[in-house]
Amino acid sequence: MSGEDGRHVIVETSELEAFCTAAYRAVGVPEADAELASTSLVEADLRGVYSHGVVRLPIYIERLAANAITPAAAPKVERQTRTTAVLDGDNGLGHVVSARAMEIALDMSAGEECAFVAVNNSNHFGAAAYFAEMAAAKGAIGFAFTIGGINHMTPWGGADAMLGNNPFAVALPTPLGFPIVLDMACSVAARGKIIVAAKDGTPIPGDWAVGPDGVPTTDPVRALQGFVQPIAGPKGYALTLTVGLLSTMLSGGAFGSEVTHMYDDLERPQNIGHLFGVLPISAFREMDEYNAHIEKAARDIKGVPLATGTDEIFLPGEREYRLKLKQRDNGVSITSAVLEELKAMGGNYGLKAPEPIRVEQDASAA
Amino acid sequence: MSGEDGRHVIVETSELEAFCTAAYRAVGVPEADAELASTSLVEADLRGVYSHGVVRLPIYIERLAANAITPAAAPKVERQTRTTAVLDGDNGLGHVVSARAMEIALDMSAGEECAFVAVNNSNHFGAAAYFAEMAAAKGAIGFAFTIGGINHMTPWGGADAMLGNNPFAVALPTPLGFPIVLDMACSVAARGKIIVAAKDGTPIPGDWAVGPDGVPTTDPVRALQGFVQPIAGPKGYALTLTVGLLSTMLSGGAFGSEVTHMYDDLERPQNIGHLFGVLPISAFREMDEYNAHIEKAARDIKGVPLATGTDEIFLPGEREYRLKLKQRDNGVSITSAVLEELKAMGGNYGLKAPEPIRVEQDASAA
Repeated sequence: MSGEDGRHVIVETSELEAFCTAAYRAVGVPEADAELASTSLVEADLRGVYSHGVVRLPIYIERLAANAITPAAAPKVERQTRTTAVLDGDNGLGHVVSARAMEIALDMSAGEECAFVAVNNSNHFGAAAYFAEMAAAKGAIGFAFTIGGINHMTPWGGADAMLGNNPFAVALPTPLGFPIVLDMACSVAARGKIIVAAKDGTPIPGDWAVGPDGVPTTDPVRALQGFVQPIAGPKGYALTLTVGLLSTMLSGGAFGSEVTHMYDDLERPQNIGHLFGVLPISAFREMDEYNAHIEKAARDIKGVPLATGTDEIFLPGEREYRLKLKQRDNGVSITSAVLEELKAMGGNYGLKAPEPIRVEQDASAA
Repeated sequence: MSGEDGRHVIVETSELEAFCTAAYRAVGVPEADAELASTSLVEADLRGVYSHGVVRLPIYIERLAANAITPAAAPKVERQTRTTAVLDGDNGLGHVVSARAMEIALDMSAGEECAFVAVNNSNHFGAAAYFAEMAAAKGAIGFAFTIGGINHMTPWGGADAMLGNNPFAVALPTPLGFPIVLDMACSVAARGKIIVAAKDGTPIPGDWAVGPDGVPTTDPVRALQGFVQPIAGPKGYALTLTVGLLSTMLSGGAFGSEVTHMYDDLERPQNIGHLFGVLPISAFREMDEYNAHIEKAARDIKGVPLATGTDEIFLPGEREYRLKLKQRDNGVSITSAVLEELKAMGGNYGLKAPEPIRVEQDASAA
C-alpha cells in the first residue's frame, strides 16, 4: 500500500465517491451496495484514516473482477436467537456485509437488549470505526472486531506470521456532536513506515519489528524480511490474538493457518470473520442522565492542565471528526500516488478518476 | 503497594485462604461473601498476578473497618431488561458484587442470549480475569471491564491525572483444560517499578512516565512527581479512557474528577463501576465445532517456529494456569514484605497469619 507519504492533492468528496461507486458498478456490484461501500471508504479518507480509505479501492476492484470477492453477494442469517445472529456474508464486500450485520444487531436490540452478530464469509471491511459509529448514531455503544486480511505478526516468541494486525473499534454516543471512538490495531508501526526507512537507509526504533529469526531489529531491511511487532510486547500479542478469536471463533471465519493473503492470493475467497455488538444506553440508564455524565467526563478530560508543548487535548475520534467536517466542505486529501493508482485502475474500466482541485503539502492538520 | 520485589516465601494455599476469610469475617463480612472474596483474591496469587492478590488485603480490611466499604452489603438490581441489568453494589466488596453481576449475566444469557450487566457503587474487584473466566467455565466468552480505584494517568497531552490505569479481561473457553484469557491494563510499567528505580538511582525507559509537566522523563524521581504513561502513546490513552467509560457511563459509576483515591481517602465510598458481558458459544455455533476450531487455532499459534532464545509460545492465560496448578499443590508464593503486612494487619484482629513452609528465590518460574 502507498498513501503514507508523498505529495497530497485535494479532490472533491462527491467526485471521489462517484468514482468509487462507478468502479464498484463496473465490476458488477449492485447500485445500493456500491454506494454504501463507496461512502464508507471515502469516510475513512475524510477522517484522515487514509490507510483504510480509497488506497484500498484497487485491490477491492481487482478481487471483485477475479471473483475472489463476489460482486452481487446475498448475505443471509444462518443462525439466530433473540439477541444473537450469525451472518453468512456470501463472500460479499466487507463494508456491505458489515453494515448489514450491524443493522441486524440494532434491529434485535431495539433500544432494549444487547445484541451481537458474528459474521463469516466476509472480506476486508475498511475502518472498524464506521460500523461502531452506526450504533452510536442510534444511541447505543457499538463494538466492531475483525480479523485482518493478512498475517503480519508472530505469536510472542515466535518466528513466523500467524496473526493479523487485528483492529477493533468501540463507539460511545455523546451529546457533543460526535461520538467518542476508539479505533485501533495492535502493531507499533505500519509496515509502510519500515519500507520508507529502508529506502532512506535510516534505522528504525527497536520495538517496531523483529527479523526473520523473531529477534527485535533496528535494521529496516532485516525488518522487512521479518514481522511487525505488537504494541506493548506480550500485551499486544494477547490483544491481537483475542480480537482475532472474537472475530472468527463464533462464526467459523478463517484464523491462523486458514488466513489467505488479501493482496497475493486472488484465487480463493478469504472467509474473513467479524463480530459486531450493541449496548443500547436506554436499556441501562435514562438517556439524559447518560448524556450529562459523559459530557462531564469529556469536560474533565479536555480540561486538565496541558503538558508543555500541547495545544489541546482531544477525545478519541474528535480530531477525526473535525478533519471530516473540514474535508467534507473543502475537498478530501489523498496522495498523488494513490490518485495515480486510481487513474490506472479507472482506465481499465473506461472511468475517469477525479482531477485535483488543488495541491496540499500538509494533510494532517485538523 | 509492595510485592513487586524482595524475597519470596511459600505458604499453604488453604492456610492463606483461611486467613483472608477470617480477616474479612473480623470486620463484619458475612461468611459466604468472605469465602468468595478470599478465593478470588488468593486465585490472583496462585496465577502469579501478585499485584492483585493478598497484597491488597490490608487496604480492603482498612476500608471495611472504616466503613468506606460496607461489610454486609446487599447488592440489588435497579434496572433490568431481558438481557441487560444495572446492579447497585451497595458499596460492597468488589469481588463479591462482581461475582454476583456475572452470575446475573449468565442467568439472563441461559446459553442462548448475549447479556451485559453494568455495576455501580462497587469497589476494587481485584483481577478482572476471575470474572471473565466465570463465563468461560459455563461455555461462554466472558468480558470484564472496570475503572481503576486511583487516577494514575493523564489524558494524552495533559499534565494532570484524570484517568485510571483501567483493566479489562476477555476469556474464551477452550477444550485445552484452561480458557484463553486476555487480562491487561493500559500502562507501560507499574508505578512500583519506578519506585524501585528511584531507590536504585537508575534511569527509567523514556516511555514509562511523564514528569509533572506532562513531558516524558527518564528521571525516576521526576517520574514519581508525575504520571505513568499509557502503552503505545495515544492508543493506550484512548484504550484506558474507553475502558473507563464502558465501566461507568452505563451505570453511573465515578469517572474522572469523581474518582476518589482507594488508599488515601478512607472517608468516602468509591462508587466504582464495572461492566460484565457474556456471549454464549452455543447461541452462535455448535460447541463441538467451536472446540475443534479454537483447538486448531491454539495449535497454529503454539506451533510456529520459535524465535531465537524462546523455549515455548504461550497462549494468553496459559502460563498463569500452569503456575496455578503448581502453586495449588506446592503452596503459594508471596513476598516476605507482604507476609509482614498480613501479620501486622492480622495482629489488629487477633488473627495469626500463615507461617512460611519454605523460602523461594524465584517465584516467577512457571
